[in-house]
Amino acid sequence: MKYPNSSKVYVKPNTSAANRGMSLEEDINKTNRYYLTSDIAVIYKKPTPITIVNVDYPKRSAARITEAYFKVASTTDYNGIYLGKYIDFEAKECNSKTSFPFSSIHPHQIRHLADVLRHGAIAFIILRMTYYNKDFLIRAQDFIDFYQSGNRRSLPFVWISENGFEIPMTYQKPCDYLETVNRVYEM
Amino acid sequence: MKYPNSSKVYVKPNTSAANRGMSLEEDINKTNRYYLTSDIAVIYKKPTPITIVNVDYPKRSAARITEAYFKVASTTDYNGIYLGKYIDFEAKECNSKTSFPFSSIHPHQIRHLADVLRHGAIAFIILRMTYYNKDFLIRAQDFIDFYQSGNRRSLPFVWISENGFEIPMTYQKPCDYLETVNRVYEM
Repeated sequence: MKYPNSSKVYVKPNTSAANRGMSLEEDINKTNRYYLTSDIAVIYKKPTPITIVNVDYPKRSAARITEAYFKVASTTDYNGIYLGKYIDFEAKECNSKTSFPFSSIHPHQIRHLADVLRHGAIAFIILRMTYYNKDFLIRAQDFIDFYQSGNRRSLPFVWISENGFEIPMTYQKPCDYLETVNRVYEM
Repeated sequence: MKYPNSSKVYVKPNTSAANRGMSLEEDINKTNRYYLTSDIAVIYKKPTPITIVNVDYPKRSAARITEAYFKVASTTDYNGIYLGKYIDFEAKECNSKTSFPFSSIHPHQIRHLADVLRHGAIAFIILRMTYYNKDFLIRAQDFIDFYQSGNRRSLPFVWISENGFEIPMTYQKPCDYLETVNRVYEM
């Protein structure tokens, strides 16, 4: 694990009551609000893509969607701008102790990460390993290289701990990934 | 109108049958697909933000949203990366001959344009004046300066034609705004 002052590769599960309490999505949204109000970066989660089939327009009240379906996302969930650079990432939670299954990330999203990388983006995956109560930043290029290189069906935790970069948390920034971006991309 | 080889400020309405046939959104989406497949840029429309209230999970079929409402967007509709730069814009159609009313664009979206500009984005509004059958790129900074400077409730067409940059159309790129970005931002 490429984290300064960290000597262990394997970390013990954190079973204390001080666990991150919320979902990764909530933690990232809270962190993004902090970045926005502190004028550090402008990064948003994209809305969930849906196909709307039917909408009611009742008199004197708001239009009401009565039939809609979830669509497969063609891009990652988060993007924005930081220090003049285009930032793009996907966030995933993983409950397994041993690996992150590739079936958890859609091929469209991997293709999108490759697309934006080719155009000069800072692109990565934020992976929350809930068993270890740790968040990791995995560079999109590292992920894609591993994904394309073999017959693996998942990213082993050994690989994650060796190639990922641990993301610190604070109360105001429960997933302070830009701190990690600064180190990893030498911003 | 700052368009090369254009001598007229006021343009006659185009009443031919060769009008742009689709909505601005469809034209931009088609153009974005061309940019993506030609590896020119990676720019997407964000999904429409909605609040989901109720979802049915019928056995053996897809989850069905049965109650949801449209939310006010907190950002613009389009963003992405072009030549390593973060691109952000809002697109609006306007039927008026004389002006574009500020009531058509949400204050959140104007604040978002100011936010991303401050962080180094290329940010603008694409305005389709349907009466003239013309699309204009208006730099976000120019728009914000005018919006904040006075008591105007709309952007007059005279101002649009003098400060906007006309966007060309082709069959494959029915709203080829990156051609205009190249000229305006000297990419």
